[in-house]
Amino acid sequence: MLIPQPYLLFLGDVTDPLSAKTAKGIQQWRPELCVGQHRLTSETVSLGLNDLTLEQAKAQGAKTLVLGTANAGGFIPENWLSTLSQALDLGFNLASGMHQRLVDYPELSAKAEANQCQLFDVRHYDEPLKVGNGLPREGKRLLTVGTDCSVGKMYTSLALEKEMNRQGLNTEFCATGQTGILISGRGISIDAVVADFISGATEAISPSFSDHEWDVIEGQGSLFNPSYAGVSLGLLHGAQADALVLCHEVGREHIRHLPHMAVPAIEATLVANLQAAKLTNPNAKFVGISLNTSALTEAEAQALCRQWEQQYQLPVTDPVRFGIASIVDKLHSL
Amino acid sequence: MLIPQPYLLFLGDVTDPLSAKTAKGIQQWRPELCVGQHRLTSETVSLGLNDLTLEQAKAQGAKTLVLGTANAGGFIPENWLSTLSQALDLGFNLASGMHQRLVDYPELSAKAEANQCQLFDVRHYDEPLKVGNGLPREGKRLLTVGTDCSVGKMYTSLALEKEMNRQGLNTEFCATGQTGILISGRGISIDAVVADFISGATEAISPSFSDHEWDVIEGQGSLFNPSYAGVSLGLLHGAQADALVLCHEVGREHIRHLPHMAVPAIEATLVANLQAAKLTNPNAKFVGISLNTSALTEAEAQALCRQWEQQYQLPVTDPVRFGIASIVDKLHSL
Repeated sequence: MLIPQPYLLFLGDVTDPLSAKTAKGIQQWRPELCVGQHRLTSETVSLGLNDLTLEQAKAQGAKTLVLGTANAGGFIPENWLSTLSQALDLGFNLASGMHQRLVDYPELSAKAEANQCQLFDVRHYDEPLKVGNGLPREGKRLLTVGTDCSVGKMYTSLALEKEMNRQGLNTEFCATGQTGILISGRGISIDAVVADFISGATEAISPSFSDHEWDVIEGQGSLFNPSYAGVSLGLLHGAQADALVLCHEVGREHIRHLPHMAVPAIEATLVANLQAAKLTNPNAKFVGISLNTSALTEAEAQALCRQWEQQYQLPVTDPVRFGIASIVDKLHSL
Repeated sequence: MLIPQPYLLFLGDVTDPLSAKTAKGIQQWRPELCVGQHRLTSETVSLGLNDLTLEQAKAQGAKTLVLGTANAGGFIPENWLSTLSQALDLGFNLASGMHQRLVDYPELSAKAEANQCQLFDVRHYDEPLKVGNGLPREGKRLLTVGTDCSVGKMYTSLALEKEMNRQGLNTEFCATGQTGILISGRGISIDAVVADFISGATEAISPSFSDHEWDVIEGQGSLFNPSYAGVSLGLLHGAQADALVLCHEVGREHIRHLPHMAVPAIEATLVANLQAAKLTNPNAKFVGISLNTSALTEAEAQALCRQWEQQYQLPVTDPVRFGIASIVDKLHSL
């Protein structure tokens, strides 16, 4: 899956800023890929990008119209279809992170074929995969892991990529979820592959390489989340990470959506991930802890980072508040 | 997935006895479900069952024609199709454990619809599933786990079911792989579900129950197999096992298909599985070790079982050679 860039970000008629999270992520991490935004009404959420017609965006080089919003139920509203059709007639590819597939709309499929455009349903993956083999591959890899899902693994991965490149470590981000795929233009939604192929898909996402120094692989879920731990373990084995970064949201009261399940302790999470990672890379090690400290004051957050640095003997930071350089500093010696 | 029984076992024209392993498994574990066998030639492998025409089997009550052989590539030979078509016309359902799907043959799909018969592709699973939630459910559960795949987890599970029922523990076998599904007539091929739903599918395979005492859930893969460990972990979390039985093949030199990966030590396998199992059932415990000792003489096998019983403080047996009563004896107190 390789989505042609640059993008025109389609915001439809959504008015809830939270619904435009994906589009915002693309704008935040890949501003150079965003030619502009396309909104159906003046009340639609704005990212502050240039409002462009499809024709204007096309003239400025946009290759793909990205559906960068989340809807309840993950479906594509009826009143968006004429715009999507029109975009295909103008030669745009379409990319969507929604549950409902673009390819399941006969009108869109037909237009795409007629205009030789591609439809990217990044939440799904139907291509043939191989099962993982655990064989060592060339290149260095960092994987983010977590105490739970939605604790900042994608944010941390993208922040690491940016800071690593700033510090001269030639690094590429490897996406494993729909937002990450739209941001980077490639990847596989690892939780959407058939269970037998989790580690194999991860090996495909970050194959042997020698043209750069590091791959930063976006983690998913948690070994301690009883809904998704299988995905996390397959990802851990397939990543063969040299470096692991633990992500955690301070103050989370229980595993997401499961009030009866406690968030695991930091120490237990470090131990379990390291033990499992060593199956395919005996040299795997943790290089830092990345926190979401939004529940704390800045002073409290600072104090906690210092305390945990002592306790776990690792750099501890909140990348939003304090950047992530302290972790990247550790990577030069790996 | 609930396959109507009894069965007529279809052996096609295979001449290699190993290819008829699935049919043999059905005959071995569910002889009462096998009305007879149907062979296309006199050179075809025989299970020693009555050779019946489709009409004879139908008259004797057979409801489903089971494709009980494995082919290279997992496809259905062209010259079988007329028999399968004819069976549908006679009102048989068809069940297949092959990779290639019955439903992908337009001729078979049409006939099935016309005759209101069902096509069961047990290696695949397309029905909607829920993600696992880890909530405790009623009933007691035993799960077989392994040092690798193909070490005897299905055999051990079926032997446990049989012996538990013999000892008065009302027990049902819960299948997670194609052969097990054909044997029991129900279940989900756990490695074929979308990765997000591994533990959820396991919760669906063995839901809350109070009409019997135990479910014995067939394990898959190994936490130490880098190709499939994600499946094994999701299965472990979803099973919420009260009792675990470790399966191992004595003398296996490396992880199946992966010469560079060592088979894990028994102790490490016990520790890792127990630790992961406790996430969804803090009372999980190992109750025995089931060995495939075919590489040893019977005297050597006996000696090894006694030695490991001392070492691991658990009943250790080879169910083929010595039965599995010593493990079942431990279950009465759970």
